[in-house]
Amino acid sequence: MTESDIQKERSRFVGLAMEAIERRGEEITRSILATETRTPRARIDALFPEEADLFDAIVAEWFAPHVAIMEEVVASDMPANRKLYEFFARRFLKMRVRYRADPATFQLYCELGRDNFHQIESYIDLGDHYLSELIAQAQADGHFPGVSIADALSLINQMVHAYVQTDILLYLDHKLSEQKLGWIIDTIFTGLSGDTGAARGMSNLRVA
Amino acid sequence: MTESDIQKERSRFVGLAMEAIERRGEEITRSILATETRTPRARIDALFPEEADLFDAIVAEWFAPHVAIMEEVVASDMPANRKLYEFFARRFLKMRVRYRADPATFQLYCELGRDNFHQIESYIDLGDHYLSELIAQAQADGHFPGVSIADALSLINQMVHAYVQTDILLYLDHKLSEQKLGWIIDTIFTGLSGDTGAARGMSNLRVA
Repeated sequence: MTESDIQKERSRFVGLAMEAIERRGEEITRSILATETRTPRARIDALFPEEADLFDAIVAEWFAPHVAIMEEVVASDMPANRKLYEFFARRFLKMRVRYRADPATFQLYCELGRDNFHQIESYIDLGDHYLSELIAQAQADGHFPGVSIADALSLINQMVHAYVQTDILLYLDHKLSEQKLGWIIDTIFTGLSGDTGAARGMSNLRVA
Repeated sequence: MTESDIQKERSRFVGLAMEAIERRGEEITRSILATETRTPRARIDALFPEEADLFDAIVAEWFAPHVAIMEEVVASDMPANRKLYEFFARRFLKMRVRYRADPATFQLYCELGRDNFHQIESYIDLGDHYLSELIAQAQADGHFPGVSIADALSLINQMVHAYVQTDILLYLDHKLSEQKLGWIIDTIFTGLSGDTGAARGMSNLRVA
């Protein structure tokens, strides 16, 4: 097989593995994948030499549309605020379609992600990398004056957390909307600056 | 026993129940509470006539400091932005002290709360009630122009979600701080208005 054939074959088995996960309602191993697909174990092992390779491939498949969205938005020539909105909104809507199509399977993937957090960390880092680029572009246009990229990254991530953290959809779907997300992005563009505000730093916090 | 004696006795057994939960690492029933405390079952039942009464009393005990904080902040005469900050920051710090003192027990209470969500809903409603009051006070001072109380309530709740939703501390503690929360509140006070922003409503969202 050529490398391209192997890629196609691997991708086909990732699809079959995801179907098996959804059918069985649990994480699957290479051994289960072989049984479920009546495929010789050696053939599965040739495609996924290590156990973790199968899970990594599933994670890559899950995040592929998100990575494509981020790349497309970063490369686009929309204004900075619109870009930031699309960066979060398109992924949120993608996630919501998946969630509403099959809440139980969505929850299962959330749990698999939590249990294998180190395997999804690189996607979180990639999101931060692209978000930092968007922030730098926005600052070049005069937005977020006096805020370091690291601070802006952290604050923006926190203010839109409900639209990014996958499992929040499980309990907050009815309160989340792309309109509210847009309003939050507008609030961030108007309000986020390095000025010392009145709420912050006026005195030590008195803990009741 | 007088009503006050009964209250004291109930409160003492709630404390014992919480100790038992922390020791055993699981939710406990009236039957377990009787065994654990070598108390006649009839005495436990006199204090907690229904099984749900015990759990409700534990929830009330857990939320009591939060309710006290909200009442104190709403009744205070600080400026609107400072009030909103204290409203969230004091409860966040209270939660963080609990979390850091014993992460495993904290996680257990988060799980109990998730599994018995209808029993904590009234506390969420109470928080929304007080937050609506703070928003109305802020609007009387000219803040959040053109935003309905319902919209402001929802948007503010979402923007500070990471500081309110208990179990987010379990994975985001290292990124959360009262300084960042203050910065977020400042951003909200400067940026949240009814003006149609550029990010929102410019055109239909194109889903990639």
